[in-house]
Amino acid sequence: MAKKTGDPFSKLEQERNRKDSGFGTATTSTRARLILPDGRFNVMRNGQSFSARLNLYHRLITMPVFEFVLVIALAYFLVNLVFAGIYYSIGLEHLSGIDEQTKFISPFWGAFFFSSQTLTTVGYGHISPLGSLTNVVAAIEALLGLMMFALITGLVYGRFSTPSPKILFSQHLLVSPYLDMNGLMFRVVNERNSQLINTSVNLMMSRNEADSTGKLIRKYYNLALERDFIQFFSTSWTVVHPITPESPFFNETPESLAASDTEILVALEGHNDAYSNSVHVRTSYLYSEFVWGRKFVPILSEKGNGYLIDLNKINETVEAPLNV
Amino acid sequence: MAKKTGDPFSKLEQERNRKDSGFGTATTSTRARLILPDGRFNVMRNGQSFSARLNLYHRLITMPVFEFVLVIALAYFLVNLVFAGIYYSIGLEHLSGIDEQTKFISPFWGAFFFSSQTLTTVGYGHISPLGSLTNVVAAIEALLGLMMFALITGLVYGRFSTPSPKILFSQHLLVSPYLDMNGLMFRVVNERNSQLINTSVNLMMSRNEADSTGKLIRKYYNLALERDFIQFFSTSWTVVHPITPESPFFNETPESLAASDTEILVALEGHNDAYSNSVHVRTSYLYSEFVWGRKFVPILSEKGNGYLIDLNKINETVEAPLNV
Amino acid sequence: MAKKTGDPFSKLEQERNRKDSGFGTATTSTRARLILPDGRFNVMRNGQSFSARLNLYHRLITMPVFEFVLVIALAYFLVNLVFAGIYYSIGLEHLSGIDEQTKFISPFWGAFFFSSQTLTTVGYGHISPLGSLTNVVAAIEALLGLMMFALITGLVYGRFSTPSPKILFSQHLLVSPYLDMNGLMFRVVNERNSQLINTSVNLMMSRNEADSTGKLIRKYYNLALERDFIQFFSTSWTVVHPITPESPFFNETPESLAASDTEILVALEGHNDAYSNSVHVRTSYLYSEFVWGRKFVPILSEKGNGYLIDLNKINETVEAPLNV
Amino acid sequence: MAKKTGDPFSKLEQERNRKDSGFGTATTSTRARLILPDGRFNVMRNGQSFSARLNLYHRLITMPVFEFVLVIALAYFLVNLVFAGIYYSIGLEHLSGIDEQTKFISPFWGAFFFSSQTLTTVGYGHISPLGSLTNVVAAIEALLGLMMFALITGLVYGRFSTPSPKILFSQHLLVSPYLDMNGLMFRVVNERNSQLINTSVNLMMSRNEADSTGKLIRKYYNLALERDFIQFFSTSWTVVHPITPESPFFNETPESLAASDTEILVALEGHNDAYSNSVHVRTSYLYSEFVWGRKFVPILSEKGNGYLIDLNKINETVEAPLNV
Repeated sequence: MAKKTGDPFSKLEQERNRKDSGFGTATTSTRARLILPDGRFNVMRNGQSFSARLNLYHRLITMPVFEFVLVIALAYFLVNLVFAGIYYSIGLEHLSGIDEQTKFISPFWGAFFFSSQTLTTVGYGHISPLGSLTNVVAAIEALLGLMMFALITGLVYGRFSTPSPKILFSQHLLVSPYLDMNGLMFRVVNERNSQLINTSVNLMMSRNEADSTGKLIRKYYNLALERDFIQFFSTSWTVVHPITPESPFFNETPESLAASDTEILVALEGHNDAYSNSVHVRTSYLYSEFVWGRKFVPILSEKGNGYLIDLNKINETVEAPLNV
Repeated sequence: MAKKTGDPFSKLEQERNRKDSGFGTATTSTRARLILPDGRFNVMRNGQSFSARLNLYHRLITMPVFEFVLVIALAYFLVNLVFAGIYYSIGLEHLSGIDEQTKFISPFWGAFFFSSQTLTTVGYGHISPLGSLTNVVAAIEALLGLMMFALITGLVYGRFSTPSPKILFSQHLLVSPYLDMNGLMFRVVNERNSQLINTSVNLMMSRNEADSTGKLIRKYYNLALERDFIQFFSTSWTVVHPITPESPFFNETPESLAASDTEILVALEGHNDAYSNSVHVRTSYLYSEFVWGRKFVPILSEKGNGYLIDLNKINETVEAPLNV
Repeated sequence: MAKKTGDPFSKLEQERNRKDSGFGTATTSTRARLILPDGRFNVMRNGQSFSARLNLYHRLITMPVFEFVLVIALAYFLVNLVFAGIYYSIGLEHLSGIDEQTKFISPFWGAFFFSSQTLTTVGYGHISPLGSLTNVVAAIEALLGLMMFALITGLVYGRFSTPSPKILFSQHLLVSPYLDMNGLMFRVVNERNSQLINTSVNLMMSRNEADSTGKLIRKYYNLALERDFIQFFSTSWTVVHPITPESPFFNETPESLAASDTEILVALEGHNDAYSNSVHVRTSYLYSEFVWGRKFVPILSEKGNGYLIDLNKINETVEAPLNV
Repeated sequence: MAKKTGDPFSKLEQERNRKDSGFGTATTSTRARLILPDGRFNVMRNGQSFSARLNLYHRLITMPVFEFVLVIALAYFLVNLVFAGIYYSIGLEHLSGIDEQTKFISPFWGAFFFSSQTLTTVGYGHISPLGSLTNVVAAIEALLGLMMFALITGLVYGRFSTPSPKILFSQHLLVSPYLDMNGLMFRVVNERNSQLINTSVNLMMSRNEADSTGKLIRKYYNLALERDFIQFFSTSWTVVHPITPESPFFNETPESLAASDTEILVALEGHNDAYSNSVHVRTSYLYSEFVWGRKFVPILSEKGNGYLIDLNKINETVEAPLNV
């Protein structure tokens, strides 16, 4: 365990100074971007426990509202189907009052509707359980119903109270003229009326490079911004990385970016006033999503005694010759 | 993409050093303040998705309680109306027991009350569904009722558990004598009994200025404060910007402030003990809301074995000749 | 608005360097401590809006569980009483089936029990509404019942999910021997099994002093601590302010502390793992709660394969002659 | 209270510079680790209030789902049993309609099922209360039922909405070759699909040392890491402490570590995107859980257009001779 002679720290210092986004150096696949445009990491897991893989709550919270209602309706139907089967097997003579129903509908569906009245705790009582077995099943079903609706209450509240933020990013990353040089630019805007404050943005460039042995490794560089924090994220924000000679983007061409599989990782953080929580969103721009020599058109205008943002214009650009 | 000769960084450094609140430089309208007195940004959005524009949860959470109860009662009435129409169309002969009711009320209202008993899951059962169609509708209505009340439960909890903070700001910004100079002063007090801690205030002055080409742009300046943080926000807080020669407010007059459309942006942050969340509030003072040569009267007095804040006095001032 | 000649900043700098806890300089009453032992600020408010004064949610969340159940039971009783009165006034002939009940109980109580069955949505149906007026009232009561229980659900969840932290402070502040000098010491322990991490403590001394004109003002001093942060607040923590010659406490005596109405303000912050929220608690020690020449006895012992804290010993001390 | 002659601060400075994790210096038991592998502190409490000891909410929130359902079912059964006993004692003649049931089941179970229909607010009504006493009990039971299910709703939501993070740590701490020296390494991976960001790790070494008087005290050392922060915790993270000559681990052997009862305390913090809360987890490695001369095998591979982590491999290692 004695330390080596010579200068043992140089390698360590190099390693310490190496940027790492957290994706590591082995993510050199040219077919796999690191972050998907919607902000999810492009990483799957094998060997998860069932509940971790299912991730039920998160799915139910984030699925579209129509799908959510459908899932509940389906669950309601299936549970009633199962209990109808049980009541039917026990025997309809243990459902007092069902005779009046079965003049109109089949015995099974009579049991089905009794089940639905029990599960929802409506309990009209024109059909009622008779005998121990049916009574036990009905008592269990009523409890189950209450637990199911406890669950639905929680889900509905969860969906409503912590809506996913709707931060819109421009579809492309522009290489635009900027001051007396050029800059990387994308535009971001809050679709919701909620007020984002203390918002900051972090930009990281990631590309494949060959190490001293010629092996491809993934390298990461912070891209310095014109402005990486704004107190009030009230309108739209055009985030700019000035391409100074110090920038790792300096002298790059569309071809060189494609060759090194360049991807720009974007992370935005802020505080959402209305829901009193912090907002973290991500996106990324792959080299194929860069557009050269265009700039954004204004998105903000005066209207009445206030200002208006036109979200439809977020991706609108005009030609703009680059500075050389 | 080669960089220009000369000193390419001077423009960039200027741009970097320019303060920006997040409203940008184009917000030079003299009819539009940036922040409304209640803290909302004076910015509308065009092209929002329907759900973002509706912003339903946030509205239901923040509307006055009377309005909230009314919305629920109305929704309850309308849903029952719709289902009454359905039961009525299917035919009253499929509502067993309704005959006893229709001696007193019209058949439609009999169906209406059956609907209300189903939606709320009361289900007395003196009226009960007969036949498959009515049973199906009743089963759906009971499920809908449970989902509606899941929603109401969530809303009621949301309204109750995260009340909007009630931070009161004085109506005017005073230009008052301060030590051996003058100062900008406003007063802030927590109307609720909840305990705010680690509270900080940030003040920004915003005004129109002509750039080198004569074009109006909006410029922003931080205003240094006598004190920008207090550990316990227990009583009232008179926030003071001392008008030193370094202040951008130095040598300003009511006329010059009006000419440049000056607006002071205020942001206050703190931690709310009782609800274990952070509080962020904003307000702004337009030049027309400044008052010259007055100072605040004390708001705190001793009472019994403690202290008393009189919230009614928050806007009370007396004449106070400015230092010259 | 011209600035004064001479050195205009000296007064400002003095003011800026003055510590202020947020209680201000006018809180010089000798009968009023600033912070109550339970951590509340000793400040009342006049002129609050009704809802801010009522502070209903916070009270219902923090009252003892027995009181909470009582409040709900009482509300339940009163609402039923009101509705019983309404049904009774409309006429019992509009409550079908009540005749069977009134053989045993008075008509009013029959209406009362019908009301309770409607409010809770049990709806047995052996009593049921007849005629439009009674039906309308019953439909409203069922809706009210659901809203009341939405409210109760929210309150129960609120009570359960964000329990007030139970941080115990020793009753007295000790002046004890510490290393080769003396120190101010108090002890703090987490009564709950929840795990507090990244915990920090801040100590402020507050006392009356005469300013240059002889007027009493309240002054504040930070007290430097031996240790003001611990990563794991796992056992107990004896917080120590070493009384070095630089300490504002140096050379103080019980008499001088009483004369200046000295109060030590304590604020503790940490992160609560189990409930994923931050914990902020406060207490204060008035000069009359200082004990001189004693030290704490150990509170931690080994037990089995772990350690044991004996909460009963938090206030136990033994004599310990001070260093001179 | 005069200060001692000589240099009174040296002892204080020593004390101030001593690291303390919060476990203190008296925790020198060789049978008691400080942090259990699941992250709980190995500390019990004596003298807690009943509710603090019970810690009911936290237990119900964290117990396995099967156990949770069982607890609810049991509570449901017991409450019904109690109320059945009450109705039975009052007399079955006060339960109208029970005669039809008692042809099939015993009177007590008839009362039991009536109770269950009241508690769940199903209220079929084929059995209904008659007379004041039974009516009062039924009204109370329905209220109790609603409160119980308010509670269940809250618990179900709490369980669902704030799932405990599932951060997996490798079972052993490896002493592995690292660059041109050796390093302490463990691996950590997020089992859930949720996205952890701004994640940091802190490592502390804790061991028994004799002080100048020969008394054992517990000492703590921070272990510097190759990297203690990653922005995106997307894949797996091998945390490395390089064993430089400055490391307190330098020159240690398995025997010396056992003799000093060495334990490595690990704390990880991050922000969980999906649930918008912060994640704090802990674990510890006792000297007996160190493995010398092995290194981890890769856990990340390419799959389709993305990457795949194989959680099953988290503990897989291969032999790797240490650098000397």
